[in-house]
Amino acid sequence: MNCLQKSATKTYAAVRAAQLAGKSIGLVPTMGALHEGHLSLVEASLAECDHTVVSIFVNPTQFGPSEDLASYPHVLEQDLRLLEERGCWLVFAPQADEMYQPGHGTYVDVGSVAVPYEGASRPTHFRGVATVVLKLFQIIPADRAYFGRKDYQQTLVIRKMVSDLNLPVEVRVCPIIREADGLAMSSRNAYLNAEERQRASLLWQSLKLAEQMHAKGQTEVAVIARSMRELLATDELEAEYIAFLAEDTVQEVTHLEGPTVVALAAQVGKTRLIDNHTIG
Amino acid sequence: MNCLQKSATKTYAAVRAAQLAGKSIGLVPTMGALHEGHLSLVEASLAECDHTVVSIFVNPTQFGPSEDLASYPHVLEQDLRLLEERGCWLVFAPQADEMYQPGHGTYVDVGSVAVPYEGASRPTHFRGVATVVLKLFQIIPADRAYFGRKDYQQTLVIRKMVSDLNLPVEVRVCPIIREADGLAMSSRNAYLNAEERQRASLLWQSLKLAEQMHAKGQTEVAVIARSMRELLATDELEAEYIAFLAEDTVQEVTHLEGPTVVALAAQVGKTRLIDNHTIG
Repeated sequence: MNCLQKSATKTYAAVRAAQLAGKSIGLVPTMGALHEGHLSLVEASLAECDHTVVSIFVNPTQFGPSEDLASYPHVLEQDLRLLEERGCWLVFAPQADEMYQPGHGTYVDVGSVAVPYEGASRPTHFRGVATVVLKLFQIIPADRAYFGRKDYQQTLVIRKMVSDLNLPVEVRVCPIIREADGLAMSSRNAYLNAEERQRASLLWQSLKLAEQMHAKGQTEVAVIARSMRELLATDELEAEYIAFLAEDTVQEVTHLEGPTVVALAAQVGKTRLIDNHTIG
Repeated sequence: MNCLQKSATKTYAAVRAAQLAGKSIGLVPTMGALHEGHLSLVEASLAECDHTVVSIFVNPTQFGPSEDLASYPHVLEQDLRLLEERGCWLVFAPQADEMYQPGHGTYVDVGSVAVPYEGASRPTHFRGVATVVLKLFQIIPADRAYFGRKDYQQTLVIRKMVSDLNLPVEVRVCPIIREADGLAMSSRNAYLNAEERQRASLLWQSLKLAEQMHAKGQTEVAVIARSMRELLATDELEAEYIAFLAEDTVQEVTHLEGPTVVALAAQVGKTRLIDNHTIG
C-alpha cells in the first residue's frame, strides 16, 4: 500500500509539505487492530480535514511489565486495507526502535488527572500515553487529532497535556461505538472467549442501569453503585472501580447533579475492560 | 515597540503565518537582562533565518524555592531596545499567568542527563527548563533554536528532549562570550559587588589553568582538579563541583583522552555562578 510510512522523518516531511501547500491534517493515533470505533474516528477526520493520517503503533511505554504488550493483536495488512478503502492519506506504522532510540529517557507527566483510576491500576500507563502522543504530534503536526471517548481518562490526560504544553492541535473526542449488545468496541475484546464475551455485556448493562435509576429519580451515587455491583455479580463480575465523575474531570461526586461520567473497569477472565457512560 | 507580543496564541499565529509564507524562523529563548552572550545568539539567528524571535520570560518553574526568582533582573525596555536595534522580528514576553494557567500540572523530564551537577544542586531546575522550552517550541515553532554553551548541561538536556520527543527544531549551541578578564557573561553577574566581581574572574583562570596543565602533558584529572581548587582557594572561593566530562555527555573521565568539558559551579558571595571550557 503506497500510503504506508515507517520512517518518522519521512512522515514529518510529507505532512509538512502538505501543510505548506495549504492542506489541513487530521491525525488518528491508534495501536492498530482497528475496529468500528477507530474507523469512526477516521470518518470524523475525513469529514473535517483535507488529509487524514492514521498512526499504528503498539506503544511499549504505556504497558506495565505484567500487561499484554506481547499478546496485543497485530493485523497490519488488514488495518491497511480498511484504511485504504476509506481514503486515508498516510499510515504511519513505525517499528518500536524508530519511536524509542536506545537510551530514550524523556517522559511527559501530566500530574493529578493521571493519578486515580486507570493511573492507579497502571502506574506508568498515562506517562507512556502522554509521551507517545506528544511524539506523534511532533512527527505529524496535525491540525486536529481524534480520540475515542471509551478511554475517558485518557482523553482528559491528552487535553491536559495539550493545554499545559501549548500544543497547537485541536483535540476531538468522538462517541463510544458499541457492539449490538452494548459492549464497547475495543481491540482487547478479541481476547474474550465465547463465554467471557457474553458476560462482558454486563458492563454496559450496569451502565444502563445507572442511567435508568437516575432517570427514575435516584441521585445517591452509593445506592446506584451498589445496584451496579449486584448486577455485575449475577455473572461473577466484580468491578475494579466504579467512579461517578463530574464531566470532563476525575472529581468524584456523591450526589448526581450535573452531567456525570460513570466509569468502570473490570476483569473478564484474563482481560481487563473499561467502559463509561454519561448520565444526568 | 511594535514587535513586542505578550499573547501566546497571537505569537503562534504570527509565526505560523510567516512559515506558511515560506519564511524560516529562528528562536532565541532568554530570561531577559540581555548581555553580549544573548546578543551573539540573536546574531547567529539573524544570519541563518529569515525571521528571528526572542522570548523573554523569567520562568518560575526552573527556580528552586530558595533561589533568586524574586530578585532576577527585569529590564524589558532596555532589552527591547537592544533587540530592535539588531532587527529582531518579534519579541515574545509573556506574563507568568500566560505561560502557566492555574492548575498547570504537566512537566517534561529528560532522565539521567538532568540528574547530576546542576540537577543535583537544583533538583527541579531542568524539569522546569525542559517544560518551558517545549512550550516555547510549540508557541514559536521555529526551524532553529539558539542556546549558549555556558549552560553546558542545559544544552544536553535540550538536545536530549528534542531527540527523544522528535521535536522538529534544529538546536544550535553557540560559544561562551566572556568579559575582558574572562568571566563568562551571565545576567547573574549583575548581582556581584566590585570585590566579588574581581574574585569571580578566578573561575575562568582555573579553567585556563586546566587547559595549560593539559597542554603541558598532565592527563590526571585528580591532579588538575586539585590545582584548580588551590587556585580558587587563593581568593577564598570553593567550587561546588569541578567535573571533567566526555564532550556532549555528563560522563566523568578520570584521564584526559579526547575532548573534555571542564565544568564548575561556585558561590561568589551570595551569587552562584557556573562556567565551563573544553580542553583536549
